[in-house]
Amino acid sequence: MTSTFGRLFRITTWGESHGPALGVVIEGCPAGVHVTEADIQAELDRRRVGQSKVTSPRNERDRVTILSGVYEDVTTGAPISLISYNADADSSKYDNLRNVFRPGHADFTYWAKYGHRDHRGGGRSSARETWGRVAAGVLARKVLASVGCEVYGYTREIGGIAMETFDRNAIEQNLVRCPDPVAAEKMVTAITDVKAEKDSLGGVVEVVATGVPVGLGEPTFDKLDALIGQAMLSIPATKGVEIGEGFAAARSRGSVNNDAFYRQGVRVRTRTNTAGGTLGGISSGEDITVRVAIKPTSSIERSQPTVDTEGNETEITVYGRHDPSVVPRAVPVCEAMLAITLADLLLVNRAARLTGSYTGFADQQ
Amino acid sequence: MTSTFGRLFRITTWGESHGPALGVVIEGCPAGVHVTEADIQAELDRRRVGQSKVTSPRNERDRVTILSGVYEDVTTGAPISLISYNADADSSKYDNLRNVFRPGHADFTYWAKYGHRDHRGGGRSSARETWGRVAAGVLARKVLASVGCEVYGYTREIGGIAMETFDRNAIEQNLVRCPDPVAAEKMVTAITDVKAEKDSLGGVVEVVATGVPVGLGEPTFDKLDALIGQAMLSIPATKGVEIGEGFAAARSRGSVNNDAFYRQGVRVRTRTNTAGGTLGGISSGEDITVRVAIKPTSSIERSQPTVDTEGNETEITVYGRHDPSVVPRAVPVCEAMLAITLADLLLVNRAARLTGSYTGFADQQ
Amino acid sequence: MTSTFGRLFRITTWGESHGPALGVVIEGCPAGVHVTEADIQAELDRRRVGQSKVTSPRNERDRVTILSGVYEDVTTGAPISLISYNADADSSKYDNLRNVFRPGHADFTYWAKYGHRDHRGGGRSSARETWGRVAAGVLARKVLASVGCEVYGYTREIGGIAMETFDRNAIEQNLVRCPDPVAAEKMVTAITDVKAEKDSLGGVVEVVATGVPVGLGEPTFDKLDALIGQAMLSIPATKGVEIGEGFAAARSRGSVNNDAFYRQGVRVRTRTNTAGGTLGGISSGEDITVRVAIKPTSSIERSQPTVDTEGNETEITVYGRHDPSVVPRAVPVCEAMLAITLADLLLVNRAARLTGSYTGFADQQ
Amino acid sequence: MTSTFGRLFRITTWGESHGPALGVVIEGCPAGVHVTEADIQAELDRRRVGQSKVTSPRNERDRVTILSGVYEDVTTGAPISLISYNADADSSKYDNLRNVFRPGHADFTYWAKYGHRDHRGGGRSSARETWGRVAAGVLARKVLASVGCEVYGYTREIGGIAMETFDRNAIEQNLVRCPDPVAAEKMVTAITDVKAEKDSLGGVVEVVATGVPVGLGEPTFDKLDALIGQAMLSIPATKGVEIGEGFAAARSRGSVNNDAFYRQGVRVRTRTNTAGGTLGGISSGEDITVRVAIKPTSSIERSQPTVDTEGNETEITVYGRHDPSVVPRAVPVCEAMLAITLADLLLVNRAARLTGSYTGFADQQ
Repeated sequence: MTSTFGRLFRITTWGESHGPALGVVIEGCPAGVHVTEADIQAELDRRRVGQSKVTSPRNERDRVTILSGVYEDVTTGAPISLISYNADADSSKYDNLRNVFRPGHADFTYWAKYGHRDHRGGGRSSARETWGRVAAGVLARKVLASVGCEVYGYTREIGGIAMETFDRNAIEQNLVRCPDPVAAEKMVTAITDVKAEKDSLGGVVEVVATGVPVGLGEPTFDKLDALIGQAMLSIPATKGVEIGEGFAAARSRGSVNNDAFYRQGVRVRTRTNTAGGTLGGISSGEDITVRVAIKPTSSIERSQPTVDTEGNETEITVYGRHDPSVVPRAVPVCEAMLAITLADLLLVNRAARLTGSYTGFADQQ
Repeated sequence: MTSTFGRLFRITTWGESHGPALGVVIEGCPAGVHVTEADIQAELDRRRVGQSKVTSPRNERDRVTILSGVYEDVTTGAPISLISYNADADSSKYDNLRNVFRPGHADFTYWAKYGHRDHRGGGRSSARETWGRVAAGVLARKVLASVGCEVYGYTREIGGIAMETFDRNAIEQNLVRCPDPVAAEKMVTAITDVKAEKDSLGGVVEVVATGVPVGLGEPTFDKLDALIGQAMLSIPATKGVEIGEGFAAARSRGSVNNDAFYRQGVRVRTRTNTAGGTLGGISSGEDITVRVAIKPTSSIERSQPTVDTEGNETEITVYGRHDPSVVPRAVPVCEAMLAITLADLLLVNRAARLTGSYTGFADQQ
Repeated sequence: MTSTFGRLFRITTWGESHGPALGVVIEGCPAGVHVTEADIQAELDRRRVGQSKVTSPRNERDRVTILSGVYEDVTTGAPISLISYNADADSSKYDNLRNVFRPGHADFTYWAKYGHRDHRGGGRSSARETWGRVAAGVLARKVLASVGCEVYGYTREIGGIAMETFDRNAIEQNLVRCPDPVAAEKMVTAITDVKAEKDSLGGVVEVVATGVPVGLGEPTFDKLDALIGQAMLSIPATKGVEIGEGFAAARSRGSVNNDAFYRQGVRVRTRTNTAGGTLGGISSGEDITVRVAIKPTSSIERSQPTVDTEGNETEITVYGRHDPSVVPRAVPVCEAMLAITLADLLLVNRAARLTGSYTGFADQQ
Repeated sequence: MTSTFGRLFRITTWGESHGPALGVVIEGCPAGVHVTEADIQAELDRRRVGQSKVTSPRNERDRVTILSGVYEDVTTGAPISLISYNADADSSKYDNLRNVFRPGHADFTYWAKYGHRDHRGGGRSSARETWGRVAAGVLARKVLASVGCEVYGYTREIGGIAMETFDRNAIEQNLVRCPDPVAAEKMVTAITDVKAEKDSLGGVVEVVATGVPVGLGEPTFDKLDALIGQAMLSIPATKGVEIGEGFAAARSRGSVNNDAFYRQGVRVRTRTNTAGGTLGGISSGEDITVRVAIKPTSSIERSQPTVDTEGNETEITVYGRHDPSVVPRAVPVCEAMLAITLADLLLVNRAARLTGSYTGFADQQ
């Protein structure tokens, strides 16, 4: 089971939901990046559960400790090891899951693939694994910041309720991270309702990168689009990804979908951005826009037909304090994965040319 | 610029649209696979242009030659090198493209990234690169066939016209590879119309894998979903990918979207397959279903605003015989990439356990 | 700075000599391997300093904790994270090294490469990094044991004193891990003497793998020899590596150096083993034999000319309790790296053939 | 069977000795490198057989064709595909080798590993595979030249006869590429004699890199030493590698073996270079010096005991025109592999720091 993502900026996550700890090792973060535990913690706090009535009230310990690779608050180029200790969990409450496959979860497939598994709280397949992604994402963001690139995200849709207006400042002002305060209220209501019905909702996260240098992405198979696809679909509960217009482009025409080029100062720009900031798998300098489909939470307090490890048909009800929709908490994870993908490709791109790099047209018109 | 995909079954494509040749090197194909040039050619012929009135009438030379790795029609375990020579092309007709960026194409981004490019026919960014993918896919299919796994695909949608019925036998019976003959006719008409309007259409390809062994996919970042995401979004003109219900799952509820397990003979099955054959990033044994969004062809014979390599704003009309919709020809490419992804993970999965492998429940009920 | 070794069985080490902790993450260890902290600790204790008068009397904390990937004493296929906490070190004693480059050490090159470094005790370049290799080696050994393959090592030479007899049982019975008790005594004397002279000695470690399956090693660049070369020369203080006769083969003749084949039961054997168990980069089934040159310890309590980070020429004396020869402690590290290399290639080799594997000649003569 | 070497500058070789062609694909060569077929051919001619009475008189076709990645004599950043067509060989003369394992060769191990092999002329395990390495090395050399780094090599020893003087200009002036004209003559005589005896000789190649930037090499496992170890031991017939003093360092003392630092202009230098240009696995700016042990040619016209594919003991005499010593021809191959290793690490090193790079001390004393 490999657990590594990236070529030069690489992260390896490890740890199970109910083991003693979990963490991430970041290889290839350049030396000279200023970072503190507080910087990382601030971002982890955005991901944390127990944030509001629409998320799980569990009290997870998310506190980060930097174990290596940073000296006097600056990265040294050595692997950066970040750890979070799990609180002593009462694993006995998972005993009923030891031999039964929860529908929608990875219980059956892990059991079949590995023969032996840590079933407690989903073990390795738990969304708790994303802790390390968000932590590593802080380093990636700092690498990107050095060239003026920034990543942010928000909830576009939950349970079929879609945002209709966009106010970036509103995003972190509501429980669901929606840039449309009106839609946000409807989403909160929908989540509250579905929780009462012992059911769950999915939704769509959108992440955006601004200030992206032209040239990130490596044809052929490491296209920026392709690596974003891998990054996003490696996040638990994701089932689809779009770059730019995505599936809407499939219903469009070339004359509409082609983004016309024009000149703006030293830069080549496009009038529209249906492409979502990539052309031929390489960043064009326009905003990268990505949408990710999140399925409804699989853990629901309803009786569901299933099979056990002996092959007997049975029923299961998954008790516990689960998020009725993980969409708001998926936002920082999607952001982190986009940041890591871009930081990695930024470093890789340094090898694209023998000398020089694209800086636009020196001679302004 | 890396051009490699896969971990153990790995392909590296090379070649430009108008260079002397293009090809693919396949590393890690197991020894003992029976294969001939005719096997590969049959599949390449499905991808070829000039197949019908709805595709480009160009006469590309697609003939494959096996240069290494196969001895007496059986693979030896050595790298398999496949080549296709380009016909002597008249490159002078591309002279007008040398200094102007075609909208929707990779001209600008390649130029900015590399400083120096082969502009003829798109050079490396041309869809002609997919030749090697389809050729390599034949080997991947043969590896999969050894465990009873098969991949096929079809056009689900073109220009907003969606299939409504499914007849697998109909797929290769119409010009657009649609399993719904009625929709197929409408699609052909739409393509003919859009061609007359000097415009182009996108669409949606669906690919399916049947007989997939349980256990393919490597958590965490090499989830089956994630690698399918990379594979599909590495294909030129793709802008979105869905596994199973995809974005529709984002609008569903847990009680509906969870696929209930049941027992069928020695196997664990699910009653529904909203997940598209993966759970926790690992194949469940149900059919893998993937949908891919293809944007409308960027090359259109209309005047479009653009910029040249000197930074001057100008206009461009892209003449030439381009497919008004590449969707039908994208089908074998999507199939090939799914086959390659699965064959690779099949080999990787051999290392998942110290001993044994999942074979279902021996004791039938 | 990547810190990963291996293709399917992969280790990533992290941590600095005087940071809070160091560790290793093992990806791709198959599920189903029985392992406890005690198993790992036993091997780590062989590497530990303070073992005898010929090694450094420092009191390093080497205690291992398993943080993930093992459940109920069996590996799950998930990444295995192993950690060792450093004792609270008094870093102030390294203040004099902050700005001066120790000859023979990596101080200058790290400083030049990264601009910013953790200088305390060598930081990342310290031999303390090998802790994780030895720990991971235990898992690798267990994977190898499943096919009857075993790795062991010993000191062949220290300070020019070479072993002349071989008694495997004697190896762990003397302070220098030499299979020749007489030579061992001379080596101990030599080390004691050189220590009094405030100087240091190098030597040669030999590692052997027995019971190696035929077929490990991947031509062309991942030949068994090549990966052993990388593995050994990645160990601090190593400057040379030989497989089989090594440099002696360069002075031999084909008629002598060719190992003649013969038949022994179901097996193909060779009469001699000048090749050291590999042919064409693939294991032949004969013992793998590897010799590694270890340079004399760079830290000596003598005044040596050097330069500081301001570019001033100066002198340095490296005080501290350093091993006058690291050779005996290098033995378990070399063993671990050979075991990891072989375990990795064992897993990779599972993908060599579509079906079947080499098991010798069924029909016994 | 993977056949790829390198991280960012990566080569993949393919092809068998007696297949239709062989070649190499170079990924990640930066755009902007000026190169022609003539440049590559000049280097290939150094490797060619049939050069003199001490090498095989076979007439191999070594002519290179550039198939991709170069446009108007400049690299584009796209994969560079280089090919050489094999002359129509009479494969029937290898029929007697189909079922018998040549001692010292990879016949047995390939057969056991893959079950199916191309036995003609050694197939994939033939030294003819090194064609692609030498061809790719030309690109690597050009990348290195852009920073003033150069690689050269020579024969240090053949059949126990060692060079005693060094005249770089003499290297290409004699048949064995020895910088000592007197030793060269003795070597030629020794080779002539051993040929008459139907036997063969090994030797030692030395390769040197000058003008190496400080900072190449990635701790921990991708140390410069480690990757050189892999590179050299991946060359057919190599059995040992030393960096700097190598095994001699193992017999030295710290006070002698430590290279003292001093200041020379803007640079930090060492008075001696026992380390061979690396400290802690990173280039120090001193010359990289590497010695490689080459075993005697395995193909000899003497009857040798062996086994066939049925398990029968038998005898074999390997007829054909083989080099009685491959050492002189190994020189350009070792050079190429050193150049490729350094070029790759040069590109990787661009990601070591967030900003800036080591340029020495601005203020001269």
